[in-house]
Amino acid sequence: MQRQWVVARRPSGRPLEDGDFELVEAPVRAPREGEVRLTTLYLGFDPAQKSWMENLATYVAPVEIGGVMPGLGVGVVAESRAPAFVAGDIVWGMIGWEEQPTVPAAEVWKLPPEVPASAALSIFGATGRTAYLSLMKVGKPVAGDTLVISGAAGATGSLVGQIGKIAGCRVIGIAGGPEKCAFLTDQLGFDAAIDYKNEKVRTRLRELAPGGIDIFFDNVGGDILNTALAQLALKARVVICGAISRYNFDPRSPEMPEGPRNYFNVVFSGATIQGFLMPQYESDYPEADRRLVGWLRAGRLILGEDVQVGFENAPSTLRRLFEGRNIGKQLLKVA
Amino acid sequence: MQRQWVVARRPSGRPLEDGDFELVEAPVRAPREGEVRLTTLYLGFDPAQKSWMENLATYVAPVEIGGVMPGLGVGVVAESRAPAFVAGDIVWGMIGWEEQPTVPAAEVWKLPPEVPASAALSIFGATGRTAYLSLMKVGKPVAGDTLVISGAAGATGSLVGQIGKIAGCRVIGIAGGPEKCAFLTDQLGFDAAIDYKNEKVRTRLRELAPGGIDIFFDNVGGDILNTALAQLALKARVVICGAISRYNFDPRSPEMPEGPRNYFNVVFSGATIQGFLMPQYESDYPEADRRLVGWLRAGRLILGEDVQVGFENAPSTLRRLFEGRNIGKQLLKVA
Repeated sequence: MQRQWVVARRPSGRPLEDGDFELVEAPVRAPREGEVRLTTLYLGFDPAQKSWMENLATYVAPVEIGGVMPGLGVGVVAESRAPAFVAGDIVWGMIGWEEQPTVPAAEVWKLPPEVPASAALSIFGATGRTAYLSLMKVGKPVAGDTLVISGAAGATGSLVGQIGKIAGCRVIGIAGGPEKCAFLTDQLGFDAAIDYKNEKVRTRLRELAPGGIDIFFDNVGGDILNTALAQLALKARVVICGAISRYNFDPRSPEMPEGPRNYFNVVFSGATIQGFLMPQYESDYPEADRRLVGWLRAGRLILGEDVQVGFENAPSTLRRLFEGRNIGKQLLKVA
Repeated sequence: MQRQWVVARRPSGRPLEDGDFELVEAPVRAPREGEVRLTTLYLGFDPAQKSWMENLATYVAPVEIGGVMPGLGVGVVAESRAPAFVAGDIVWGMIGWEEQPTVPAAEVWKLPPEVPASAALSIFGATGRTAYLSLMKVGKPVAGDTLVISGAAGATGSLVGQIGKIAGCRVIGIAGGPEKCAFLTDQLGFDAAIDYKNEKVRTRLRELAPGGIDIFFDNVGGDILNTALAQLALKARVVICGAISRYNFDPRSPEMPEGPRNYFNVVFSGATIQGFLMPQYESDYPEADRRLVGWLRAGRLILGEDVQVGFENAPSTLRRLFEGRNIGKQLLKVA
């Protein structure tokens, strides 16, 4: 027997609760031809997982009540009936919240040399590809651009800022609290950080980006997005990647943060607001992976990791994202 | 002597009022070398003129209190000291609210053959170029696209819809009242119209665009924009051209329509919201002019015109735009 977390309820329009998940025991299943059985090492967490539970994102298979909670993870192959894998291989993929998942070999990938197990979930899958592709293909950085990132100390934001530095941008991160801000400037090499909990974002942006924002990379929504929209440079690109301020509310609820009143500034600045929809860039995944691995090996990317421990803590670890508690990638060490 | 309307007050954050303008007498000035003196035939009106008075748009020269109200118009050359013009030529340009303006010859343009005087203000200048360039360069229509236009019975919207038809789109207009809607479908050849004053926009859009909106062309903002954002097709383009619902309010006023809560749908649909800033497309003006004149001559464009009469009525004619009273281009016949 092994343990699984299954989805018990949809957290639609409200914060996640303990009762949304149920910890169950299930038999370990021997792999059939073309499958591998894994021992899960790490689970990786992303705010999008809540929207999957709500069936909001049409590009992800619907999550069934009673089904194993989907999620990316890293495992070690315990038993293989696929020619490409042998026991001991370290792989990543959508393995779900399960201690010993048995999955199709075609849906997991071996880690390249010199990529640590925990790093895989920052570099591959949603986080790294999102950071690279949304910045490069939607933000379209030009050396000398001023790049401002909200939610900058999160997994995606912290990578976006570092990639922006490699691309020659001046990088300003917005994050909550002095610890996160120090992480951005002292460890990741951001040019500046704004602590939205203790500083006036509007004023600080005016000081730090007097020529306006060329690229605004938004993970937050709400007031911060609205404030940034008032300070766009000519032909600015606004990348909508996430909106952590919105995920706990129903769109029709009065508590849902207001939409950005300053959206009309896109006319005065000829600016673009574009949503990043991952599957549109599938053909570019190899480019993203190759460059990120190259930069990681060259020591040009620092991966912030917030590692919680113990399979039983998966739901509370997911909730940390919505409480703004993680610095860097939120991980759970399972084995 | 002749008459001018000068700007008396800035209408910032509120509707236009009578006292915002002052009718004054001024001497007729003989042209110097390189200038022409005109007799104004028509003035053309655009909601952007209010934002010019508020000095909101950084791409237009600041409007001075006590200065002649700027605006596009058509005149006949009364006296020329420029080699390119002779008395009797019909020209258009930024001639301002003045009965007999004397202007640099380099700032007015002769009407091509077969373009009636009143049509110049729909085809050239802000209206026609905005319609053509914002649809073609920002909306990027592909034959078969579903194009939805708000403020569709206005000067720009009614042209955008007709250009969209030429480009092979299915065109749905949103306008206020049965008269405007009949104008769109019966006279301009739109495929469908939604009367937002008497119909439920959300429901009608679902019926008329079951596959989602490929291009949403927005002149309105507010609830209509928000509703459209919930019904975007994959890779939709949202062109922000105007926001007539906003122009009477201060951005910080509680009466200002809320920002679009549904903006985050751009992530689920990988969509783009882009502002149309005319001066960015200056190199494309000849293309726009040439095609519009060609389509006009070929009988493929119908120009709706709302013609008021009498120079003294210029301020009240401008206000008609904000009251939603015009169908097609708002003009004032001066002489």
